[in-house]
Amino acid sequence: MRATVMYAAGDVRVEDVPDAQLVEPTDALVTVTHSAICGSDLWPYKQMESTPGGRRMGHEFIGVVEEAGTGVETVKKGDLVVAPFVWSDGTCVFCREGLHTSCLHGGRYGMDGVDGGQGEAVRVPQADGTLVRLPVDKDDALMPSLLTLSDVMSTGHHAALSAEVGPGKTVAVVGDGAVGLCGVIASKRLGAERIIMLGHHEDRIALAQEFGATEIVRERGEEAVERVQEQTDGLGAHSVLECVGHEESTVTAMLVARVGGAVGRVGVPQGDPIPEGTRTFFDNVKLAGGPAPARAYIEELLPDVLEGRIEPGRVFDRVGPLDDVPDGYRAMNDREALKVLIQL
Amino acid sequence: MRATVMYAAGDVRVEDVPDAQLVEPTDALVTVTHSAICGSDLWPYKQMESTPGGRRMGHEFIGVVEEAGTGVETVKKGDLVVAPFVWSDGTCVFCREGLHTSCLHGGRYGMDGVDGGQGEAVRVPQADGTLVRLPVDKDDALMPSLLTLSDVMSTGHHAALSAEVGPGKTVAVVGDGAVGLCGVIASKRLGAERIIMLGHHEDRIALAQEFGATEIVRERGEEAVERVQEQTDGLGAHSVLECVGHEESTVTAMLVARVGGAVGRVGVPQGDPIPEGTRTFFDNVKLAGGPAPARAYIEELLPDVLEGRIEPGRVFDRVGPLDDVPDGYRAMNDREALKVLIQL
Repeated sequence: MRATVMYAAGDVRVEDVPDAQLVEPTDALVTVTHSAICGSDLWPYKQMESTPGGRRMGHEFIGVVEEAGTGVETVKKGDLVVAPFVWSDGTCVFCREGLHTSCLHGGRYGMDGVDGGQGEAVRVPQADGTLVRLPVDKDDALMPSLLTLSDVMSTGHHAALSAEVGPGKTVAVVGDGAVGLCGVIASKRLGAERIIMLGHHEDRIALAQEFGATEIVRERGEEAVERVQEQTDGLGAHSVLECVGHEESTVTAMLVARVGGAVGRVGVPQGDPIPEGTRTFFDNVKLAGGPAPARAYIEELLPDVLEGRIEPGRVFDRVGPLDDVPDGYRAMNDREALKVLIQL
Repeated sequence: MRATVMYAAGDVRVEDVPDAQLVEPTDALVTVTHSAICGSDLWPYKQMESTPGGRRMGHEFIGVVEEAGTGVETVKKGDLVVAPFVWSDGTCVFCREGLHTSCLHGGRYGMDGVDGGQGEAVRVPQADGTLVRLPVDKDDALMPSLLTLSDVMSTGHHAALSAEVGPGKTVAVVGDGAVGLCGVIASKRLGAERIIMLGHHEDRIALAQEFGATEIVRERGEEAVERVQEQTDGLGAHSVLECVGHEESTVTAMLVARVGGAVGRVGVPQGDPIPEGTRTFFDNVKLAGGPAPARAYIEELLPDVLEGRIEPGRVFDRVGPLDDVPDGYRAMNDREALKVLIQL
């Protein structure tokens, strides 16, 4: 079969790999119909050292169950399913608490003999605990929005929950990438009164406004902080969504948070120590977040997508076939594309 | 009047200072009956640069209202009152949200013309928003426990709330100082199932056990982390109370937290960046806490003290007159004393 392999920073290829196949009785073999390139795929694209064997890529996909292992009970051949960005057993202590990203028997796509999502097919381990059936046809117009449930929309939702977004709150969203934009959708959905988007790409800002952003801050760094303070009577935002992961964006997130507010961080941190520890301490600012337990959120968000109340699929601004993946990485890295949908 | 002044690290004196007196109509003049030395007073005691004018010390006290300004409505001459460790107006946006430590019109004792608590009398600004009347006599046996409400017991409670302590939870308390011990009391009071105390002073450990600690970890650093993991089936503690503020203790706190758990930090951070940011991100560990809004907690905790359900006053293991303050600092710094009560 054909699948995406990254060999080094900037070196992404679609090539022949061994066919995906069942290994464990709890596996399902899924033929991918829709996949995506994630902002987090750009981290290795920018900096991965040369890896002779390559690394299989992709962790967001929808597909059709081709074959289910003998131990699989909840999905069967022919089912259209969405996969969260990590696989999980659904039964361990952390899964039962809704933290499937920390599943004791789970793992990531593209490693340890598990295929990546940017390919023709994927062996999905722990299919019962991982896959969620979709009650639509694979040609449904909702497919882009449903695909975002596997990562970016669930991640935006996690940021908003971690930042304690709720009715009457003022929210600041740091980062106008796909996750930040989904954070705007999630914040509006959770009843935020004001949503301040910090970003500086006009097309993304326009989309943020359509999603519910009430104010835009185009400045960066200290100027952005000043601007948010101005817009909030010097108080800051109750809830801040950190959707980038850079030190600069994290500093900004910490500094625009209101006394007693909360920062929900979902941008994968690019450095270890968390900056602005003193400020957050003296102002009792909370810090929460991490990888989103998408599996826990898909069922919660699915009705809103199916009924058209949220349209996160609008973050895709480029669609192409599997062979378009390498140029899709380039386009996203060059900020020509916001997010690329792969249609197989 | 006589009051405590610090001139440099290790140089604490009790000397004559100008009498405390009303300045604003919202002030109350309080004659101090009980004061205390705080663990946080030891930071300047260890490292303050020589300061010719000196710095007035103390922020935990109980006293009798000697005179109330014309604008004061809730306390009057003769009332016995406890003061939280910062003063606050009780009416600003943050006070109304229960975060009196961030009061827009509040401040700290011992600076800007406000007396310190380790002295014969204190001008308390914003008396209505600050002082809480005590329904007992100043010679009541409960006085030590009531005095802890002004800081350490409220701070332990804040750590526990920030760490989301609740029924069925396993708690780890990092630090066996007065705040850590009060954190044990607070955790038990909030229904914790297990309370693991990390400490290594036998007398404090014994007190922790009387307060409700169910397990003790005497190791430090990596060994302490391993020990807590062993005791929790490799999962860690749901709630971790960081009651020290050192980098090492903060690292320990971060590493013993369970996936999806919470760290409540109340130890004043001695460095800015927060360590273990990656671990806490990937494991969705929350971080909360800061200076405790004691004013908000006094009313909540007071009935439990008055009815003898909690006895935080047992953290005091030395009592002396005002002139004992300098040696009290030394004794606490040398770890001869856990916490010193000053009786005037």
